[in-house]
Amino acid sequence: MKPILVLNGPNLNMLGIREPGVYGSLSLQAIEERLLATAEQLGVELEFVQSNHEGVLIDAIHRACGKHEGILINPGAFTHYSYALRDAIAAVGLPTVEVHLSNIHKREAFRHVSVTAAVSVGQISGFGPHSYELGLIALHRHILEREGPA
Amino acid sequence: MKPILVLNGPNLNMLGIREPGVYGSLSLQAIEERLLATAEQLGVELEFVQSNHEGVLIDAIHRACGKHEGILINPGAFTHYSYALRDAIAAVGLPTVEVHLSNIHKREAFRHVSVTAAVSVGQISGFGPHSYELGLIALHRHILEREGPA
Amino acid sequence: MKPILVLNGPNLNMLGIREPGVYGSLSLQAIEERLLATAEQLGVELEFVQSNHEGVLIDAIHRACGKHEGILINPGAFTHYSYALRDAIAAVGLPTVEVHLSNIHKREAFRHVSVTAAVSVGQISGFGPHSYELGLIALHRHILEREGPA
Amino acid sequence: MKPILVLNGPNLNMLGIREPGVYGSLSLQAIEERLLATAEQLGVELEFVQSNHEGVLIDAIHRACGKHEGILINPGAFTHYSYALRDAIAAVGLPTVEVHLSNIHKREAFRHVSVTAAVSVGQISGFGPHSYELGLIALHRHILEREGPA
Amino acid sequence: MKPILVLNGPNLNMLGIREPGVYGSLSLQAIEERLLATAEQLGVELEFVQSNHEGVLIDAIHRACGKHEGILINPGAFTHYSYALRDAIAAVGLPTVEVHLSNIHKREAFRHVSVTAAVSVGQISGFGPHSYELGLIALHRHILEREGPA
Amino acid sequence: MKPILVLNGPNLNMLGIREPGVYGSLSLQAIEERLLATAEQLGVELEFVQSNHEGVLIDAIHRACGKHEGILINPGAFTHYSYALRDAIAAVGLPTVEVHLSNIHKREAFRHVSVTAAVSVGQISGFGPHSYELGLIALHRHILEREGPA
Amino acid sequence: MKPILVLNGPNLNMLGIREPGVYGSLSLQAIEERLLATAEQLGVELEFVQSNHEGVLIDAIHRACGKHEGILINPGAFTHYSYALRDAIAAVGLPTVEVHLSNIHKREAFRHVSVTAAVSVGQISGFGPHSYELGLIALHRHILEREGPA
Amino acid sequence: MKPILVLNGPNLNMLGIREPGVYGSLSLQAIEERLLATAEQLGVELEFVQSNHEGVLIDAIHRACGKHEGILINPGAFTHYSYALRDAIAAVGLPTVEVHLSNIHKREAFRHVSVTAAVSVGQISGFGPHSYELGLIALHRHILEREGPA
Amino acid sequence: MKPILVLNGPNLNMLGIREPGVYGSLSLQAIEERLLATAEQLGVELEFVQSNHEGVLIDAIHRACGKHEGILINPGAFTHYSYALRDAIAAVGLPTVEVHLSNIHKREAFRHVSVTAAVSVGQISGFGPHSYELGLIALHRHILEREGPA
Amino acid sequence: MKPILVLNGPNLNMLGIREPGVYGSLSLQAIEERLLATAEQLGVELEFVQSNHEGVLIDAIHRACGKHEGILINPGAFTHYSYALRDAIAAVGLPTVEVHLSNIHKREAFRHVSVTAAVSVGQISGFGPHSYELGLIALHRHILEREGPA
Amino acid sequence: MKPILVLNGPNLNMLGIREPGVYGSLSLQAIEERLLATAEQLGVELEFVQSNHEGVLIDAIHRACGKHEGILINPGAFTHYSYALRDAIAAVGLPTVEVHLSNIHKREAFRHVSVTAAVSVGQISGFGPHSYELGLIALHRHILEREGPA
Amino acid sequence: MKPILVLNGPNLNMLGIREPGVYGSLSLQAIEERLLATAEQLGVELEFVQSNHEGVLIDAIHRACGKHEGILINPGAFTHYSYALRDAIAAVGLPTVEVHLSNIHKREAFRHVSVTAAVSVGQISGFGPHSYELGLIALHRHILEREGPA
Repeated sequence: MKPILVLNGPNLNMLGIREPGVYGSLSLQAIEERLLATAEQLGVELEFVQSNHEGVLIDAIHRACGKHEGILINPGAFTHYSYALRDAIAAVGLPTVEVHLSNIHKREAFRHVSVTAAVSVGQISGFGPHSYELGLIALHRHILEREGPA
Repeated sequence: MKPILVLNGPNLNMLGIREPGVYGSLSLQAIEERLLATAEQLGVELEFVQSNHEGVLIDAIHRACGKHEGILINPGAFTHYSYALRDAIAAVGLPTVEVHLSNIHKREAFRHVSVTAAVSVGQISGFGPHSYELGLIALHRHILEREGPA
Repeated sequence: MKPILVLNGPNLNMLGIREPGVYGSLSLQAIEERLLATAEQLGVELEFVQSNHEGVLIDAIHRACGKHEGILINPGAFTHYSYALRDAIAAVGLPTVEVHLSNIHKREAFRHVSVTAAVSVGQISGFGPHSYELGLIALHRHILEREGPA
Repeated sequence: MKPILVLNGPNLNMLGIREPGVYGSLSLQAIEERLLATAEQLGVELEFVQSNHEGVLIDAIHRACGKHEGILINPGAFTHYSYALRDAIAAVGLPTVEVHLSNIHKREAFRHVSVTAAVSVGQISGFGPHSYELGLIALHRHILEREGPA
Repeated sequence: MKPILVLNGPNLNMLGIREPGVYGSLSLQAIEERLLATAEQLGVELEFVQSNHEGVLIDAIHRACGKHEGILINPGAFTHYSYALRDAIAAVGLPTVEVHLSNIHKREAFRHVSVTAAVSVGQISGFGPHSYELGLIALHRHILEREGPA
Repeated sequence: MKPILVLNGPNLNMLGIREPGVYGSLSLQAIEERLLATAEQLGVELEFVQSNHEGVLIDAIHRACGKHEGILINPGAFTHYSYALRDAIAAVGLPTVEVHLSNIHKREAFRHVSVTAAVSVGQISGFGPHSYELGLIALHRHILEREGPA
Repeated sequence: MKPILVLNGPNLNMLGIREPGVYGSLSLQAIEERLLATAEQLGVELEFVQSNHEGVLIDAIHRACGKHEGILINPGAFTHYSYALRDAIAAVGLPTVEVHLSNIHKREAFRHVSVTAAVSVGQISGFGPHSYELGLIALHRHILEREGPA
Repeated sequence: MKPILVLNGPNLNMLGIREPGVYGSLSLQAIEERLLATAEQLGVELEFVQSNHEGVLIDAIHRACGKHEGILINPGAFTHYSYALRDAIAAVGLPTVEVHLSNIHKREAFRHVSVTAAVSVGQISGFGPHSYELGLIALHRHILEREGPA
Repeated sequence: MKPILVLNGPNLNMLGIREPGVYGSLSLQAIEERLLATAEQLGVELEFVQSNHEGVLIDAIHRACGKHEGILINPGAFTHYSYALRDAIAAVGLPTVEVHLSNIHKREAFRHVSVTAAVSVGQISGFGPHSYELGLIALHRHILEREGPA
Repeated sequence: MKPILVLNGPNLNMLGIREPGVYGSLSLQAIEERLLATAEQLGVELEFVQSNHEGVLIDAIHRACGKHEGILINPGAFTHYSYALRDAIAAVGLPTVEVHLSNIHKREAFRHVSVTAAVSVGQISGFGPHSYELGLIALHRHILEREGPA
Repeated sequence: MKPILVLNGPNLNMLGIREPGVYGSLSLQAIEERLLATAEQLGVELEFVQSNHEGVLIDAIHRACGKHEGILINPGAFTHYSYALRDAIAAVGLPTVEVHLSNIHKREAFRHVSVTAAVSVGQISGFGPHSYELGLIALHRHILEREGPA
Repeated sequence: MKPILVLNGPNLNMLGIREPGVYGSLSLQAIEERLLATAEQLGVELEFVQSNHEGVLIDAIHRACGKHEGILINPGAFTHYSYALRDAIAAVGLPTVEVHLSNIHKREAFRHVSVTAAVSVGQISGFGPHSYELGLIALHRHILEREGPA
């Protein structure tokens, strides 16, 4: 199995620093380390990309073609307006799981809408760093099932 | 730890029979059996209730007070309009995780809105029977974290 | 041919008593008797269920699987918000005809929208008790045509 | 009893040719012939008018005053925006039944709204050519009931 | 001064017959005769056109170029949706006054909007046949003022 | 005077337990006892029904016909979407007063709309248990005035 | 016949000074003088009130009861939001004609809506000072017709 | 206990005269006299202010600071748009109860919205003059409870 | 290759006369002559129809069946509301290209929506008479590609 | 240079008393004194008007013609609905700067819209008493620039 | 004549790979080569820029000032939300033609709106790679016409 | 005091070149020089960043943590849709003042909404280059006040 691309969108590099009341006190690095532990249990490799640049995220999704098995993405605020990101996910056709640290349904109205969820396999929202780990398990199972039994 | 209440809303008793293109070919019983395996691994007990009656679901949520540690719920179509169900979840104050078999963001516009998600810990949508298993893990971790270290 | 299930939703048990200016002076029993006469002419059997409980209607629809040939339904006020009823009709896959005594387009704005019509074969609205009889003829013809010539 | 005016709006002359997946394979002439058989059974005469011109339909409705007992109308796309047609129906005060071949609630959002239904006795939608026949029966019964017993 | 074109839109030929509670008991001919008396006092000639055909009204507006001094129009239901009529009025550039027998602000919501008023000199609504006479006076004064003093 | 039916909708059985910051610390039983004291002063009898089932509430309203003088109702969350409950109140034609413990205008936007208020005599909102007592007084006076002087 | 009350709302005292491109170069006094000439021809007396205070206009409308035959009003910007003014007109029950100097349909979107027009006999908009004169004629004729022939 | 300020907004001075079908036949003076009787029973003093001027009502609310214990207000049409009145109520911080003679939910759509209710203790609507009396009792009880037991 | 039908909707006969600031100074005849030159280069024949009558345009589209290879249409104002025209284009199934002289996105909001574009191959807007020539080239290429290589 | 008119709308006389959490603890008088210091530095005179009466504010704006060089206004809640105030500002044509103590974008949705900002030079919001001082500097510079170099 | 800048927005580098059912099987390079052939015929030079970065596209538009004669742009998903791109086009003032491979009116609702079209000369949508070639011809003609005859 | 970060968003590098009718004829460099003069008077240092790249602006905001005292930002078109920018401002928690050269309330409707204003201290709009200078003063005073007296 090819590695999974783990994409983090704008401001997620500020985790632990940024509004801990909303996003928790773990840094992105700490979340990624926890995620690596889960990945090891599942026997999958991970590659991490974080960027505050929509274009960098789109480029990374394009490069994932043929190189990655699937994408685990927290699009940050791009969730709510980046149709370009949505088109990138649809373009590469890789199974993609969308995750959010906070429960987006409990926050401002503009965060209740996701323009990327409709091109993803599914969405997990509200479980802090666990959202990533559950998302990785979900993506891993989805890929295995698609490939069918040996 | 007290058992987890697993609630299934209207028409989920028809799983396997109902629109397999949308909901998959597993019966609710099969999903519950898979979920029991996950529960065993986590060391938690489950109690299952399915009903097509909004009132029966609300009564079950009320009875969960003091008897259950948390609620795993697939509210089915009630997700989109049952403010009474929402109030029930808020009233008992038990941690609740909302799950959906299908990705509600890929379907009709009325399914994009959840009136219950705002009173839940989080929401998992789009992974078929895995949504339940991931939801159970998420709920279990949430409860453990809330209780803190021994 | 298996019997037709005739479902009446909330408050239709009050027909003849309830707002005769809007709904006419016939009781539900009288309407059902007239409908039995039509059924006899068509050579079909009918089974009647009326309930003010959304869950009871959904249960009845589920039980119709394999037991009934089709459903004639007046969902009453559920027409305008019960997505659970809509899902039940879609789940069983039986041909369903929606009828209304009054012309819903002449009444309050909230009655102009039907959430169940999109999963029905068709809708008949505005002809008093005749709506049921026309609906039964329509459903009967639909079933015959689907089965094709002998 | 004076004859019934059967009005067909724009593009219905293309039936059988036009999008058979949506509208069926019968030509308008074939539908009218079937309708004549129903009319004969009911003992009513029919007069047919089809036009792609809103003005021609309005003129026909006006001329129906005193000459026809009622109107059976499939306004085609005018259903959704012709307030002039609506005013014409209201102006002549003849009982009017609105019919549609397809189930307008299953199609594009703009077809869910009827500006003419509110000035009609009722609406029948979704039963293919049967919509006309059921509509004629409905109109015939409405006229008889209005006149009362001999 | 060239004559004034008096245009009446759909269903206004039914005046006196059509819903007298809303539109009064005068026929269109009677209204036109009263208007001729006003015209005579003002020393202006009138030409009358009534049609239920949007295209006939547009053709008449086009022909008015160079032949008429201005237009007095009751667009009937076209008021609320005929952008083609609006464009015709804007195209010929003749001063146009819009009149309505009934007070459109007291009626159904769809009648509160006029798509033609924005390309007219002004609008007069609610005074029965007087709306026409006041509209003619208004148009006459507008034309005189535009031409300036001798 | 026949007794008054006091109806409480979903989750009101959780009063005292449920979100005391919003709804106060009195149990439903305590509120009913206070209300009985008021009833005694007015010389009216009360009958109490609480249910989390929409259908049970509708059945209770139907049974009130001929047996009760009027209805005092707190529809809970059904206030905001149960058109079936609205139709039930309209069907029986008994004078009905709608009460709310909390001020619904201070809470979430979906609680600002009442679909049942339009078929009630009036609405009282925001006074905690006093809302019930004031509502009973209001209903009692309404019934007396309707009956006129001896 | 009792005199007519001529009411002018906020900023109309600035006519001639204020945005002459929109409202013309005549002062309010000049408009009133022209209107007196029309009144003399009709044989009616006028009383003029202008105020920038909503409350003063409402008081004036109240005082018109029994003292005036009707009201000619240009509510200025109050047209678009003063429900209190609307209620005042409805309360006194005097025939009221609403006039506007400019064509409100050619201006900002917020000026397309009139909250007072629905309680007036009719509305005249777009003819500069002539709007007042035509409004007075319209009101005069309305009063005469209401009183019927001698 | 300091006296209660009873505020009546625009057009309420016309009670008894204005649309008795909607507002009843009692004059404001009669309502105030009835209210004085209730006040006497409760042992509270009242001060009455009625004005058609938004500014006068705001000034009165400001002056109530330190001089009154609470405010009973029927804002009339200001209910639906006077954010200035809303700010005044919030500014003084006195407990305020909003009352309406008619059931605002049964009337035009613009009356369904209250901009002042969100800053009030609660709202009572639909009981004619009783709305005032119930509102006074509600306000009195609210003040007593706030002060707590001796 | 069968000829192309070139359809022009309402008011386009006024080109050169009508609002030259918006539509340019060329007459429709001049545009058609330019288009003939392009057609000659492409080796296609053209047939021109212009009408202000929606029905005439629909009739022309119907007659194009079997007689024309495709349709080049400027629906004028019908672009924005004629669902009947839309249905006509869908009914005949001929490749259709929609053109506009002006850039509809720079004009009034109602012109930003096209109800016909969704049933066309594509849309060209904003290039004056060139819109027609480009549209013809586009349509010609589309037809050739559909037919495939010799 | 003529003096600047400093206008304060409804409830601003309550500053220091009213919701200090939102508006700060300075009284209006204190703010005006601070503003006088700024004015002195700029060499401009100020005249202060505060009123809770929309009409008084409009009258003050009218009187400013020829007497004042510009207007500094905090319209309070009138910001959000007083089209009459907007028209007054537009009518006098004096440069006007709109200021707010609180950041209106952080508060209730109805406060996000300003009907007066579009007729002002600019808007300053969120800096407490500094908003006034910055607004005065802005207005002063705007007036100087408009007059150009000596 | 200076060269034309051909700009391609996000995901267009994936053409041929990305959703061929929607966008066709040609790569962007193939489209550019075809476009070069058209350019050669017209005697214009082209410069190509593609980027998934909004900022890179804006920078490219800025650099086009003085260096390019005009811009041919397919903004991809930026069409629907990048007001920054819109401002860039408006800022440089170069004639710009917007093209789309697919017919945006046949796709998801969010694609029906273009925020950039209003600042372009015109828009061409739905003709696959031909959209670019037609767009280039349109832009070329626009530039020639603007410059006028020699 | 640490320096202030002065951020300019997309297209502001085109100032002086871009639409001078809207934005004035000063270049960004000229504005920055003027701002330096103001900064010198206040005794604060400035650092300037301009970018057309959303990601570059977000990165700059992140880097400001600990290095800058506050942020003065003109987000350009990002004001209206960049929730990522909004989150960046909220994440770093530095006091931020939003400025606009033009009065955004006088321009297109999409510019009336700011998604960043709600996380800023305040907003200044409409004073050309003065907006920056006033914004700097506002920010400086805000920082001083926050720190309190020595």
